Amino acid sequence: MRPEDVLPGEPSGELPAGLPDAVREALLAPLVDHHCHGVRRDDLVRSQFELLITPADSPAPPGTTHFDTPAGAAIRRWCAPVLGLEPHAPPAVYLARRAELGPAEVNRRLLREAGIAAFLVDTGVDGPDLLSAAELGRLGGAAADEIVRIERAEEEIAETAASGVAYISALETELASRASRAVALTSVIAHRHGLDFDPARPSRGAVIAAANRRLTDPKEPLTDPVLLRHLLWTAVDAAREHNLPLRFQTGHGGPDLDPHRADPALMAGFLRALQPIGVPVVLLRCYPFHRQAAHLAAVFPHVYVDVGLALTTTAAGSAAVMAELLELVPFHKQLFGSGARGVAETFHLGALHYRRALARVLSARLAAGEWSASDAARVAHMTGSGNARRVYRR
Amino acid sequence: MRPEDVLPGEPSGELPAGLPDAVREALLAPLVDHHCHGVRRDDLVRSQFELLITPADSPAPPGTTHFDTPAGAAIRRWCAPVLGLEPHAPPAVYLARRAELGPAEVNRRLLREAGIAAFLVDTGVDGPDLLSAAELGRLGGAAADEIVRIERAEEEIAETAASGVAYISALETELASRASRAVALTSVIAHRHGLDFDPARPSRGAVIAAANRRLTDPKEPLTDPVLLRHLLWTAVDAAREHNLPLRFQTGHGGPDLDPHRADPALMAGFLRALQPIGVPVVLLRCYPFHRQAAHLAAVFPHVYVDVGLALTTTAAGSAAVMAELLELVPFHKQLFGSGARGVAETFHLGALHYRRALARVLSARLAAGEWSASDAARVAHMTGSGNARRVYRR
Amino acid sequence: MRPEDVLPGEPSGELPAGLPDAVREALLAPLVDHHCHGVRRDDLVRSQFELLITPADSPAPPGTTHFDTPAGAAIRRWCAPVLGLEPHAPPAVYLARRAELGPAEVNRRLLREAGIAAFLVDTGVDGPDLLSAAELGRLGGAAADEIVRIERAEEEIAETAASGVAYISALETELASRASRAVALTSVIAHRHGLDFDPARPSRGAVIAAANRRLTDPKEPLTDPVLLRHLLWTAVDAAREHNLPLRFQTGHGGPDLDPHRADPALMAGFLRALQPIGVPVVLLRCYPFHRQAAHLAAVFPHVYVDVGLALTTTAAGSAAVMAELLELVPFHKQLFGSGARGVAETFHLGALHYRRALARVLSARLAAGEWSASDAARVAHMTGSGNARRVYRR
Repeated sequence: MRPEDVLPGEPSGELPAGLPDAVREALLAPLVDHHCHGVRRDDLVRSQFELLITPADSPAPPGTTHFDTPAGAAIRRWCAPVLGLEPHAPPAVYLARRAELGPAEVNRRLLREAGIAAFLVDTGVDGPDLLSAAELGRLGGAAADEIVRIERAEEEIAETAASGVAYISALETELASRASRAVALTSVIAHRHGLDFDPARPSRGAVIAAANRRLTDPKEPLTDPVLLRHLLWTAVDAAREHNLPLRFQTGHGGPDLDPHRADPALMAGFLRALQPIGVPVVLLRCYPFHRQAAHLAAVFPHVYVDVGLALTTTAAGSAAVMAELLELVPFHKQLFGSGARGVAETFHLGALHYRRALARVLSARLAAGEWSASDAARVAHMTGSGNARRVYRR
Repeated sequence: MRPEDVLPGEPSGELPAGLPDAVREALLAPLVDHHCHGVRRDDLVRSQFELLITPADSPAPPGTTHFDTPAGAAIRRWCAPVLGLEPHAPPAVYLARRAELGPAEVNRRLLREAGIAAFLVDTGVDGPDLLSAAELGRLGGAAADEIVRIERAEEEIAETAASGVAYISALETELASRASRAVALTSVIAHRHGLDFDPARPSRGAVIAAANRRLTDPKEPLTDPVLLRHLLWTAVDAAREHNLPLRFQTGHGGPDLDPHRADPALMAGFLRALQPIGVPVVLLRCYPFHRQAAHLAAVFPHVYVDVGLALTTTAAGSAAVMAELLELVPFHKQLFGSGARGVAETFHLGALHYRRALARVLSARLAAGEWSASDAARVAHMTGSGNARRVYRR
Repeated sequence: MRPEDVLPGEPSGELPAGLPDAVREALLAPLVDHHCHGVRRDDLVRSQFELLITPADSPAPPGTTHFDTPAGAAIRRWCAPVLGLEPHAPPAVYLARRAELGPAEVNRRLLREAGIAAFLVDTGVDGPDLLSAAELGRLGGAAADEIVRIERAEEEIAETAASGVAYISALETELASRASRAVALTSVIAHRHGLDFDPARPSRGAVIAAANRRLTDPKEPLTDPVLLRHLLWTAVDAAREHNLPLRFQTGHGGPDLDPHRADPALMAGFLRALQPIGVPVVLLRCYPFHRQAAHLAAVFPHVYVDVGLALTTTAAGSAAVMAELLELVPFHKQLFGSGARGVAETFHLGALHYRRALARVLSARLAAGEWSASDAARVAHMTGSGNARRVYRR
């Protein structure tokens, strides 16, 4: 046990030596995590844990393990010490120690270790096994707010609406109501259709017809392109009304998603259509299309970007991803988001890799004489919390 | 004032220590800038200046500035000293000094500092506010030649032609005439349509029909796919006749361009069709598709490539872009082009980042024992001027 | 002459200093080359040799040479000493020495120098001028097995089948028969159609109709999408029956291939369809889509990946490619394959760049404190031979 590891807001991930104090302080300052999800509250056996540290939805092939991945190696390296183990502990040792401490203590330690001051939680994958936003905040010693996943909201409407016409008005009311209590709306249209959707708002007639079809089988996840676009535009209205950002999951996802249709560049037409409306758009994760995302953030005043969970999945390689994002992204357009989900390890690793990766890039900029120390510190502050506080008004 | 900064042909960008003399000399030798545009001749207020240092066409969001970008940081770092300021001068100080010196002196200093021996100027965005090719040459102490933007030439024909048939012959005459006085032709079909155009030459009948439609509204920018392709093939004829390269803007542009349709790989079929004709094709900018562009340059004997303005926009991150291009591009196929436009800073930064980025990559190759110093020097000479002199016969 | 250079299994490529012994030993251990081709057995004049070291199918432009490429520089740097020359020997000196030693000795030296214990040879480009798998094994002091290229097998059936119905059954018999003697099947559908093929198995009726058309002109390479898909699914059956992996050439190829249709991400739907069948799929080369390939290997339990010949073509830049692959690829999913073809230099360079690139990445992971030395050694062993032995049961 190393109780000093769990003091709140003191991230322990080693930063490169030689960073100017101002830059080091900016990097270690509490973060606003603008994009995360709940994590499991219960004891997990190895097969469960392995499925929560991989984008796959099936076990690793016989004789192999999901620990043999960049993220798995990072858990052994960086999370083991938070649980009081030596770095690089073997998977079995790590999981035994995890069981010994129990999930509440493990979650508390890893959440505190992340050094996060505020969680904005996408509750679209909520369930009884997952910590709620409020619980995350309590365990992590941080503020917590909710983000609405619009495809999830739609499911409730589809199950209750009596007609296509009723579906339209109920959806509008529901999204407006949820928007009034949330800090942002998120769409997973990349998973349901792809980002190559028609950017135009569909006609009311087409929506009614499609909704009437949907109401005959409302338990199915929504994949109809007309209704997905209608949902999106209804969300745009709600976001504008309540001055909220609209967010999109983009880039690599699970096996269900077609990776070539998850490039946010495919949304350029939609982003152009949104520009006069003034709703901020946040592109989430984006990897391996983060250069495209950075470009969109550079040319559209209302577009923001993070690389979220991609830093956790690329782990030891995350500095290169951060460097590529920073090639082009305006400093006022990048946000920290852990993209955490499933296990509390992803909070700690998300924050740690973010800090380490950004530190590496800033360090290189300083060594090359490109940026001043105060430039570097300012970029770290803006990206770590300032931009999120401005965009989400939190 | 530091008058020593403005001696012609002595670029001041710091190169990595420890480069062999031959490599250093090759990197600092005068460049042929095979792709640039005019820059503003007049005084600029801050809002104007900001719009000229970003690919966006609108101001940064309230409370932010386009100086908070990699290119903005580079202006403060590298251009401030050329104007006699300390590196990293704040934006307001930089712009005040710029106003104090006046545009003629600012342009003269920045152009000279770039160390460029010849400008090949795309005059497609010409206007009274912009320095002409001849003026750029005078201020920069360099030779200057013109490059014809074919979509601009077409506009004049569309406004005067009396019929579709007349349009065809007038276009042919006009391009041939312009080609006889130019060093190359450039197409911006990426901006008007996308690079996923049908590679086949359209039929005369289809062209006449489309031209007749166009002549009813000739003030509009050309976006008809048939006429764009006809224009391209007419340009191919003119380029072959006058032994000129045909160039394409590719990769990231402004908010009007669909980034996923700007991948030069989409042109593979067109490049195959052009191969027997023998017209050299130059792919401009290409970022973030520069690996695709390098591949096209590797497999097609008539294809050349630069990363142009991408080095200026990625600034402190440009060495990674250069490294990726050099993974695959044949040494006789890469060209230096600043892609400069709008403000003279982009000439200085284009040349500086090119030299620094290439120096970093060569330095790494030498340190790893991969290339000899004479290999490295030769690559720098070929890329900096030799290839352009051969391809453009200048 | 340096006879000590040609002792078998002692690769001479310099690895970074300071690697822990276990990591160095793992990197230098004999490799299983799971993807290579035959190389020329005969004397080659310069024009022939140049065409074998480039993906182009035509000579370099007048006044230039295919030696002026990353791969060309690597031949001068790394292969020259194996032939007893100084590093960086000029092309003419290199080729003169090559002629002096004669192809048998050159091939023997370069193959031995590669330090490869087993060759899995794609014989789809076989011909009398190329060394057979058995000959490669003999010269290289290694085991050798054959891999069937299914599009080549189809050509023989197309030339002899009497009807569409006969074509179907003959194809099934032929692939099953070849599968029984081979270690894997390979498809080049990327070159014949693109990877954006319909993932569904075509109907028997559609196949018979298409086959009847094909039999009227059986000498043409197969490009019909229905028959290509039928061939693929017939190969899936044969692979399942004989427990073999099915492999796909993806990423950059020659001038005939549309690079934007060679992204393995386009196959996501097909990979989903294959998952329940249990046939391992190996994605070959993948560059510049190797991040997409790594993702597919991460989300699908049956998908494996190499970057093959891309390490040889990117040469001095190959460490960046390796680093990008290792961002995401599970350690049990990456395979070493030289992708060698044409000249024996590509075996030596494939193995050398693999070892050097992986060493660079592992070295960085160790220096950053991300991985333990035993992690790094294990990754090197798995990637270099362990994974291939498991997947190919060799």
